[in-house]
Amino acid sequence: MNTVTPAEAAAAILRGNVRAAARLMRLLDDRQPGATETLRLLYPHTGRAQVIGITGNPGSGKSTLTSRLIAFYRAEGKKVGVLAIDPSSPFSGGAILGDRIRMMEHAGDPGVFIRSLATRGALGGLSRSTTDLVHVMDAMGCDVVLIETVGVGQDEIDIVRTAHTTVVVLVPGLGDDIQAIKAGILEIADIFVVNKADIDGADRTIGDLRGLQMLMTEMPQWLPPIVRAVAARNEGIAELATKIQEHTAHLAENGGHTERERARVTFVLTQLARDATSRSVEAWLRGDEAGRTLVDAVVARTCDPYAAAQTAMSHTIVRQVAAL
Amino acid sequence: MNTVTPAEAAAAILRGNVRAAARLMRLLDDRQPGATETLRLLYPHTGRAQVIGITGNPGSGKSTLTSRLIAFYRAEGKKVGVLAIDPSSPFSGGAILGDRIRMMEHAGDPGVFIRSLATRGALGGLSRSTTDLVHVMDAMGCDVVLIETVGVGQDEIDIVRTAHTTVVVLVPGLGDDIQAIKAGILEIADIFVVNKADIDGADRTIGDLRGLQMLMTEMPQWLPPIVRAVAARNEGIAELATKIQEHTAHLAENGGHTERERARVTFVLTQLARDATSRSVEAWLRGDEAGRTLVDAVVARTCDPYAAAQTAMSHTIVRQVAAL
Repeated sequence: MNTVTPAEAAAAILRGNVRAAARLMRLLDDRQPGATETLRLLYPHTGRAQVIGITGNPGSGKSTLTSRLIAFYRAEGKKVGVLAIDPSSPFSGGAILGDRIRMMEHAGDPGVFIRSLATRGALGGLSRSTTDLVHVMDAMGCDVVLIETVGVGQDEIDIVRTAHTTVVVLVPGLGDDIQAIKAGILEIADIFVVNKADIDGADRTIGDLRGLQMLMTEMPQWLPPIVRAVAARNEGIAELATKIQEHTAHLAENGGHTERERARVTFVLTQLARDATSRSVEAWLRGDEAGRTLVDAVVARTCDPYAAAQTAMSHTIVRQVAAL
Repeated sequence: MNTVTPAEAAAAILRGNVRAAARLMRLLDDRQPGATETLRLLYPHTGRAQVIGITGNPGSGKSTLTSRLIAFYRAEGKKVGVLAIDPSSPFSGGAILGDRIRMMEHAGDPGVFIRSLATRGALGGLSRSTTDLVHVMDAMGCDVVLIETVGVGQDEIDIVRTAHTTVVVLVPGLGDDIQAIKAGILEIADIFVVNKADIDGADRTIGDLRGLQMLMTEMPQWLPPIVRAVAARNEGIAELATKIQEHTAHLAENGGHTERERARVTFVLTQLARDATSRSVEAWLRGDEAGRTLVDAVVARTCDPYAAAQTAMSHTIVRQVAAL
């Protein structure tokens, strides 16, 4: 059935063939072995796309903001890839619409390639897929790749590390400010957007952010600017795009781009290795007689988890390397 | 300086010595090798504590709810351990108060042991520590361990998998309902709490939840009950405690307890293995000459990440097993 070779698939994607790219993404979802081979062929042709992460709490309006940014870049004639990370169900893999609806307005545009990604409860599976999908979008000729993530969990933070520029979207008075602020956003943001800036409390949120920036122990080379926006009315989008360009220029001037690439690659390689370990160990514990016996022993407290993990690791090392 | 042997530390913790427990937790934070040895000695004595996960978005009032539950269990004479997971800064490890302030009211009570845990950006580090800390609290004699997590990211979901009963706290009208609902909470909840039920929209939130439960493809053995609460006024807390007991009884009757223990152990062993891989591979990529050269090659696109990850894995296998 699968008559397309990895070389043929890669060539089609490099010509910008959307159908070939979508097909590879499906194969990646299903962890088909040929998919990695295609990715390996694409990899030398990646590195041109500008990768922008957009993150914020549910209700911050970042989907609307993303949608407006898409329109902005399209008006500049750029080809845009969008990865919408949907934390949806870790168990069923099912998603209850939402972002998809909001992005529908770009559905007919051949210059916009949108991919929605559900977390699947695979240990670390999400971040790996994200990187792979960015590579595919990059290889197919997207000038800009927007990664939209919900929330500020560790997984979202991990994803954001793979972007060149990270935009954190806040909204006045959503829940406890203290909660939003302590969630590590100060360190991951390259740019803040205070969205829905027409509602009460916007000035206070901006003031709070400025105050926190003043408290930072060392003044960074790049002090994240704070952009006021009302995405629903298309206000602040051009300014945001300008700040993104300024950040890109800043990275290029200070060698920050290469530094981020090194950090990104270190992160990606670590992820690939740890995912291979996760998958192999979990499969062994669930599917192998010896693995199940080991789990029973830990449940019965006759073996401790640390010794058991060593046993599991030793039994699966060959599979781990093969799983990569 | 460290004159306490693992055996002495374990014995003190098993006698309920709070200072010894706190010391072990600090050693675990710093990844001191002796700490794992102590954990191994404690492990045969664990398995008695009832582990309850409490999760919900920022602003849902789950810290207040947790505080009320502590008071409830204390009134029953139970010893309570609390793990407050603070996603704070992945980079600085710093936290800006918050939950700590809210839980201060229990600070003087020797029957309550509260530990606040910041994520540190370590790959998968959080979930591992959580399990270790639950073991310590269990071994020191806590009857109940409450794990409070912020948000609904993958990491939070992973943590929740280690609990016997998971309570999901919702609040009427916080952000988009559709956003809150798609975030996978339907599958992880054993019990829903609609908190701040005195404000507008509580009935609608409850109705939405019931509607979603009706849509489930298979009716579960345990249909998660929905508890109405106003934690700030201590309303609904006794009912929540009753539902938690009912869920515990349900698990015991249906063999669900052992099933969860098996799932928990499988998860924990997988985590331990994958963390060992992460740490070893990352350290090699950053600290070893060959590792850094490999990263440079991937950045330069002369080597692809999949081949590079295999190389990194092969070079670090001995360290990975040793890192456990």
